[in-house]
Amino acid sequence: MSLVVVGSVALDTVETVVGTRERVLGGAACFFSVAAMQFTQVKLVGIVGDDFPEEYVTLLAERGVDLAGLDRAPGQTFHWHGRYADDYSSRESLATELGVFADFSPELPAPYREAQTLFLANIHPELQANVCQQMTHPRLIGCDTMDFWINGEPKALARTLSMVDLLTINDEEACLLSGEHNVIRAARGVMRMGPKYLVVKRGEHGALLFAGDDIFALPAMPLDRVVDPTGAGDTFAGGMLGHLDAAESVDVASLRRGVAYGTATASFNVAEFSLDGLLSASRADFDERYEALRQLVSF
Amino acid sequence: MSLVVVGSVALDTVETVVGTRERVLGGAACFFSVAAMQFTQVKLVGIVGDDFPEEYVTLLAERGVDLAGLDRAPGQTFHWHGRYADDYSSRESLATELGVFADFSPELPAPYREAQTLFLANIHPELQANVCQQMTHPRLIGCDTMDFWINGEPKALARTLSMVDLLTINDEEACLLSGEHNVIRAARGVMRMGPKYLVVKRGEHGALLFAGDDIFALPAMPLDRVVDPTGAGDTFAGGMLGHLDAAESVDVASLRRGVAYGTATASFNVAEFSLDGLLSASRADFDERYEALRQLVSF
Repeated sequence: MSLVVVGSVALDTVETVVGTRERVLGGAACFFSVAAMQFTQVKLVGIVGDDFPEEYVTLLAERGVDLAGLDRAPGQTFHWHGRYADDYSSRESLATELGVFADFSPELPAPYREAQTLFLANIHPELQANVCQQMTHPRLIGCDTMDFWINGEPKALARTLSMVDLLTINDEEACLLSGEHNVIRAARGVMRMGPKYLVVKRGEHGALLFAGDDIFALPAMPLDRVVDPTGAGDTFAGGMLGHLDAAESVDVASLRRGVAYGTATASFNVAEFSLDGLLSASRADFDERYEALRQLVSF
Repeated sequence: MSLVVVGSVALDTVETVVGTRERVLGGAACFFSVAAMQFTQVKLVGIVGDDFPEEYVTLLAERGVDLAGLDRAPGQTFHWHGRYADDYSSRESLATELGVFADFSPELPAPYREAQTLFLANIHPELQANVCQQMTHPRLIGCDTMDFWINGEPKALARTLSMVDLLTINDEEACLLSGEHNVIRAARGVMRMGPKYLVVKRGEHGALLFAGDDIFALPAMPLDRVVDPTGAGDTFAGGMLGHLDAAESVDVASLRRGVAYGTATASFNVAEFSLDGLLSASRADFDERYEALRQLVSF
């Protein structure tokens, strides 16, 4: 078993009602990796500039993330600067400086191509499709995307969706992609475009999983303190795909468990800035949170 | 066991993307009664004008709702006219004609005062408190309210909240009432005002139950067709309080089951106009939906 993730590695400047952090480790591939590494061997594909702090490389490497696919190029690392509303109901992007990420053209190192599981974080759908074709025999390909590609690259995205098994998007994106208002009808529309499995992420309201005719719904973990929601969706995907890569098979039961592990994982992430919440949690903490979720919904 | 509900009996004109219905049976007390009567004996307290169609009286009576507390007064029945956005994300009140409901001053018939359970639908908190004092030995008093009273009658509402056991409000109301952004902290703030139990209703995102330190979360039933959300909160309360009135005791286990029955009940209500969805469902349908909810969240 092994899990390849392709996506951004970033330095984030984040302002919330709790405080501000400048140029801390972020990016979808990092959030995903640090979540998934609790469950399986993770191989990261990304690109950073020559300003990327060595301590972050060391941090990921020491945690066991395979960085053979992390490219270093002359220039600046992708930098995102965002500010959250005091009630976290919205956020504003103050700066999005792509830097070397603008020329990201992911090439998988040879050993990566044999991996069992692939996750395509939110990048240009053409790049996502290109990565799919580099894999030799993946058991499961997961994929994220966003309104920017749904609106701007519908043809490229349609091609990518025909190549992936699992799509993880939020409810607004599902409605936008399908042209439906109702999330259940939206899900059916999205699945007709290719993915066998769909996770609709609803933030503090939890997630819906669609697998064939099966529907699974799980609320988010109720938290009385949210510090930084950045990366919640990526850590959700990391927990879910990490569990699925380690699972004997991909079926409704393991997918449902995967959503629960994703939910548990994301709940640690949003409780601290950057990756701090995940990095201070152990696999035992994840398992305990997973059981707390089971208790949360039991009647 | 028996359950008294005090609240509005109305004629609703409802416009949705599916169609329009004029002056159909509505009002919180009716929605609540038709939901709760699947579980227990319901006694209604309300007021209607001399324009109230006899067929609606017959309909409620034939279903077993005790109407000894339904007052008839000269004048018009409460009429609400609303229009829902095509995606049901919002609604606009086009007319709210209180009619005889403006002078509603609920007096419980003697046999009602012995009831085990009381539900105070959304009316002036002073009237709610007055009804509480008419009960001889209620086991459980549930209560609803809205932003209008939270903003306009905070002192009267505080007094009412000190007299009730269970409050059912939506997340915006919980935040408004407590002055907190975070729903968990909001819930704690609301419970400090009196209610031992709190249900935070989140529409299509389900409901949260707080009982002491226990938190229960249940998603709504995923529906691919919503016709008319009017009365969803009242039918939720009806299913929940109906179950609790019939239950041996009010504790975390029966409260959790109550939320599931409330969720099941509301899902039938929103699938048709007025009370049609509830009236065409049987207790067996409710039990089947309850089991479907258990399956929906199982992992």
